[in-house]
Amino acid sequence: MNFASDNWAGAHPKIAQSLVTAAAEYDGAYGSSRLDREVADRFNEIFDRDVAVFFLGTGTAANALAFAAVNRPGGVVFCHAESHPIADEGGAAEYLTGGARLQPVSGADGKFGAEALERAIAKYPREFIHHGQPMAVSLAQATELGTAYSQKEIEAISHVARAAGLPLHMDGARFANALCALDLQPAQLTWKAGIDIMSFGATKNGCWCAEALVFFDPSMAGDFPFMRKRAGQIYSKSRFIAAQFLAYFEDGLWLELARHANAMAHKLAAAIDASPNMSLAWTPQSNEVFAVMDADFYSHLQARGTKCYSWAKPAENPVARAENQTIVRFVTSFATTEAEIDRFREAV
Amino acid sequence: MNFASDNWAGAHPKIAQSLVTAAAEYDGAYGSSRLDREVADRFNEIFDRDVAVFFLGTGTAANALAFAAVNRPGGVVFCHAESHPIADEGGAAEYLTGGARLQPVSGADGKFGAEALERAIAKYPREFIHHGQPMAVSLAQATELGTAYSQKEIEAISHVARAAGLPLHMDGARFANALCALDLQPAQLTWKAGIDIMSFGATKNGCWCAEALVFFDPSMAGDFPFMRKRAGQIYSKSRFIAAQFLAYFEDGLWLELARHANAMAHKLAAAIDASPNMSLAWTPQSNEVFAVMDADFYSHLQARGTKCYSWAKPAENPVARAENQTIVRFVTSFATTEAEIDRFREAV
Amino acid sequence: MNFASDNWAGAHPKIAQSLVTAAAEYDGAYGSSRLDREVADRFNEIFDRDVAVFFLGTGTAANALAFAAVNRPGGVVFCHAESHPIADEGGAAEYLTGGARLQPVSGADGKFGAEALERAIAKYPREFIHHGQPMAVSLAQATELGTAYSQKEIEAISHVARAAGLPLHMDGARFANALCALDLQPAQLTWKAGIDIMSFGATKNGCWCAEALVFFDPSMAGDFPFMRKRAGQIYSKSRFIAAQFLAYFEDGLWLELARHANAMAHKLAAAIDASPNMSLAWTPQSNEVFAVMDADFYSHLQARGTKCYSWAKPAENPVARAENQTIVRFVTSFATTEAEIDRFREAV
Amino acid sequence: MNFASDNWAGAHPKIAQSLVTAAAEYDGAYGSSRLDREVADRFNEIFDRDVAVFFLGTGTAANALAFAAVNRPGGVVFCHAESHPIADEGGAAEYLTGGARLQPVSGADGKFGAEALERAIAKYPREFIHHGQPMAVSLAQATELGTAYSQKEIEAISHVARAAGLPLHMDGARFANALCALDLQPAQLTWKAGIDIMSFGATKNGCWCAEALVFFDPSMAGDFPFMRKRAGQIYSKSRFIAAQFLAYFEDGLWLELARHANAMAHKLAAAIDASPNMSLAWTPQSNEVFAVMDADFYSHLQARGTKCYSWAKPAENPVARAENQTIVRFVTSFATTEAEIDRFREAV
Repeated sequence: MNFASDNWAGAHPKIAQSLVTAAAEYDGAYGSSRLDREVADRFNEIFDRDVAVFFLGTGTAANALAFAAVNRPGGVVFCHAESHPIADEGGAAEYLTGGARLQPVSGADGKFGAEALERAIAKYPREFIHHGQPMAVSLAQATELGTAYSQKEIEAISHVARAAGLPLHMDGARFANALCALDLQPAQLTWKAGIDIMSFGATKNGCWCAEALVFFDPSMAGDFPFMRKRAGQIYSKSRFIAAQFLAYFEDGLWLELARHANAMAHKLAAAIDASPNMSLAWTPQSNEVFAVMDADFYSHLQARGTKCYSWAKPAENPVARAENQTIVRFVTSFATTEAEIDRFREAV
Repeated sequence: MNFASDNWAGAHPKIAQSLVTAAAEYDGAYGSSRLDREVADRFNEIFDRDVAVFFLGTGTAANALAFAAVNRPGGVVFCHAESHPIADEGGAAEYLTGGARLQPVSGADGKFGAEALERAIAKYPREFIHHGQPMAVSLAQATELGTAYSQKEIEAISHVARAAGLPLHMDGARFANALCALDLQPAQLTWKAGIDIMSFGATKNGCWCAEALVFFDPSMAGDFPFMRKRAGQIYSKSRFIAAQFLAYFEDGLWLELARHANAMAHKLAAAIDASPNMSLAWTPQSNEVFAVMDADFYSHLQARGTKCYSWAKPAENPVARAENQTIVRFVTSFATTEAEIDRFREAV
Repeated sequence: MNFASDNWAGAHPKIAQSLVTAAAEYDGAYGSSRLDREVADRFNEIFDRDVAVFFLGTGTAANALAFAAVNRPGGVVFCHAESHPIADEGGAAEYLTGGARLQPVSGADGKFGAEALERAIAKYPREFIHHGQPMAVSLAQATELGTAYSQKEIEAISHVARAAGLPLHMDGARFANALCALDLQPAQLTWKAGIDIMSFGATKNGCWCAEALVFFDPSMAGDFPFMRKRAGQIYSKSRFIAAQFLAYFEDGLWLELARHANAMAHKLAAAIDASPNMSLAWTPQSNEVFAVMDADFYSHLQARGTKCYSWAKPAENPVARAENQTIVRFVTSFATTEAEIDRFREAV
Repeated sequence: MNFASDNWAGAHPKIAQSLVTAAAEYDGAYGSSRLDREVADRFNEIFDRDVAVFFLGTGTAANALAFAAVNRPGGVVFCHAESHPIADEGGAAEYLTGGARLQPVSGADGKFGAEALERAIAKYPREFIHHGQPMAVSLAQATELGTAYSQKEIEAISHVARAAGLPLHMDGARFANALCALDLQPAQLTWKAGIDIMSFGATKNGCWCAEALVFFDPSMAGDFPFMRKRAGQIYSKSRFIAAQFLAYFEDGLWLELARHANAMAHKLAAAIDASPNMSLAWTPQSNEVFAVMDADFYSHLQARGTKCYSWAKPAENPVARAENQTIVRFVTSFATTEAEIDRFREAV
């Protein structure tokens, strides 16, 4: 019963097979191959417009380089306190931008609202050099807490960002999961809702290493090819990333895998909800489920072979809980099986 | 006849198969998997000592982060003018070190000598703050011009570096090729000769994306895990890099592939030498061959389907040649076939 | 009645005269002059031990380069939310460290306590690469809110920092004011209490441009001369900074000026306390006084010619106040006169 | 006889007096004072157009921040091998740009020509990401070798820079000396000749610390106020820099001082030329004179009390000289007296 993380899973067989197929050929390096170009076209189709897409190796690089692409001196990025760039990227955003600041914005369930964002931006008055200056807004979809922004919520955030002259970035490490949860088209949840730049992640959803940065307005990409190069993030055999995306998009595999992970999370949540020893911390929407339980029960679960992680209690989620309670994160993936869920249900 | 670059080749079938095998399992992320640890042990065996090894995605990242690991304020890295960090990494070393300078050192055939290095270092007197300060020496093995440093040459360079208190880095993007060309053990050509840090490349020799930074004295690695993280270069599914290395080292595959590439280069060189239309620019030792020819003949070759690149004339190699002559680079790889060489021989 | 800031004041006549005297001579550049060395000795006397001192032009550079001197990859500096590096340096610390993060620590009256610091550090577990790693603790003395840490408080903070292996930095932009307020010796309030590095400011207390970074353990200074150089912060005619410090320290001028500024603040505070239209936000200890008043009264004050600034309401100081109230900062300096205070008393 | 450097001189009495005058008043901080604005207007008058001017503390900061203002990823600045940013700024340009490269361009007498520049730029083909990309051209006026570019030479360089889409920067640390040497108007030697950004230095010519960055097209300044802030280069009592400039420009003092320094250099050069023990390395045009002499004679000069520096032999100036010869730099300044020159003439 492995619910440690979706990056503990391996790669989907079709992704693996696509790598084998790609291995046999000669083709241009550094993104110049036929496969690279073909997959770039696929991104255009998926988003229903011409985009500029750049393959990358890690989601951390995608997020940090997105900020680097819109960098300003003394720049401040507004994102949720639980966001990946703040909590899990070891200072990559700060480093690869040469010193941007990540300003946490508050909000329940891993999401911030338009009003909170507006108040946060207002603390950096335009042209007041001493505080620095706003440079971007970033939200995660799905969020790090397993929730998802509705299209309306994104539009409201975009409205605030646009009024402040700030580009809006989406960390889409689990974009497919959000898409399936909300049952929307990629365009609806991104550029039509006001997203300017997106970290498009496929690694957590069945690839082994396939990330991309997408500029919905290609003219925003500017010098990005040089940025990717100097960050050591342009792969000589880039077409192997392309090969993963090729299989990922083929016949809607990506949505199928995300739907499966979400469904498994749904069943897992039901099992938690039914257990007298745990309760859901908040309503899960994608493939991450958070439960409140006694520390003792958490130990019991682990002893029974359930892999999962205790989570720092989010400041913004004052779930009623005693001192000895903990919040535990469970993550499902394309590789999670019904049998695992069943075993978990029995264990709890 | 594709001699464009060894990174135009795909991946060796055994490497591809190893990725398929790894795809099936669950295991720890971010380098904590069983496979990651197993391959780290393999590096110890190969180098005949305990080393600290860190997997990375690109050779550019390996080189730049090697310098970041030994960074000094106002720091200057001494390397050949034709070195990859100077000529082909788009400023990655400068960027990821936050501003180190790459100081070209002169020398024929893509190699610099101990005396030239000593003179270059002497221009940055210790404690004279205005010029900056020496921080590292870096050499490529094999070099970017297809030659290799002898063990004696490395020892002489190491002697100078050590006297100046500078760590010695080896860019081993084509290390296997040098190893086979010189018929030496990995230890002999690295730490026993005075190398402190090494970019160990496998991508150009049959992997699709497998690079590593090796610290021969593990205590030098210090905070490197944090450096790799903040550079967006720690892969969540790191074990897929490990899987490539696993197959790469299995039964000496890596040396077999390099030996093949070298042998193909040898044959290619012979064909060039025998042609009335070309001459060898210098004696090749690994899997890169450089030939001098008329621009017209270069066009002819390309028209006949030979993929290869015209090379900027190295300042240090005043090969006797007329204005209309050009230097052309041919690269062989694990995927080069005898048949390709034969076709090339006929074409010239 | 100018209480806008102590940096709105000019320079004390003795400081100005010292610049005139220094103007007449030839001497070594870049800190090598007789005067530079003489003043360095003066720092040793003042702190009652041999220190390494480096002159700088701005307090922002001093703070940011202090952090640069103890930089770690993914590094996190713990300081108060109201600290100058967080609130007033436009991202200099982040920029000059190449991406360190400033982590706010909570505490009333502009000061954080040892327990709060300990909790904040605990959120960055050693060796957990994903969050980054602690690299320094920084406190301001006097604080940005006009208060001062007692020697005991600094010792408690130092205890926590030391246990976590973190250097402790003091932003001493208003050090003289704190020293006089607490009636202690410089050594007692700094290295004897556990301070490792100090930004020693004289600009706000009567110089025009005289800042210094002091390493109490000179071996910690390491490559700092190169750091200062590459930051463009080594002055060719550095001895003019020395000349200011020379007069500043002569016959205890620095303490005399700080005592005067503190005394003026004391009288100002009394006038505020006595006014029916204002109340003290908290007890002032140095040369900054914060008062709570109606927005209307603030306008009235300004209309009557009082220069002062409205201050963002510190989150940590929930002074009982209605929506239409504001907190206003008044700063005194060496140049503040009794007559100004008298006029202010009449105005309120 | 002090010819060590123009930054060994103190400050001109009128500059010192201006600091005394400014010391007495209250006024706005961080460049908002009446004096700051008044001096900004003076710059407009001097350059005969509206410019954006930013005061700074050091010439190194001015040069490095000029490059930061026009930064590009993988950016390369073209400047002479003897230029201050390459030879004397300890890596500041690389650091404050986050990793730009300074590409030396060759040329005799400390100057590069338009053709050499064109060839250097051509080595970085547009859109070829592997080398990086051109981002600026920088020339020094007067040069570090005491020579000056003619207006025509600057125009030719500007033509090349403009064709390549590169801003042209002038390091004007000794601008007044060049201006007087060439007997031109400031506008003629700068924006009318194609200069876009200028480091305007006054420190070496009689101030103690007065540097400025001038954008001839104010719209190019963009976010520069934030850049200056985050570099720790905005002075709280900025008006003291303004005060120095005020006196510097008053009644043409700056040109008077530069003319004097140039005249002293002229006499010094005549004395060198007349000596049997030395010869001029090249024809001096400003306040720096370079002489070729035996190492023994250099020792003799120093023993006789002449302060001057041995200079690394510029690669581009193969002045006929034996192994034991050295090149020695002599610098005059506003403070150099005829009596010093006379004593030197006697000594040689």
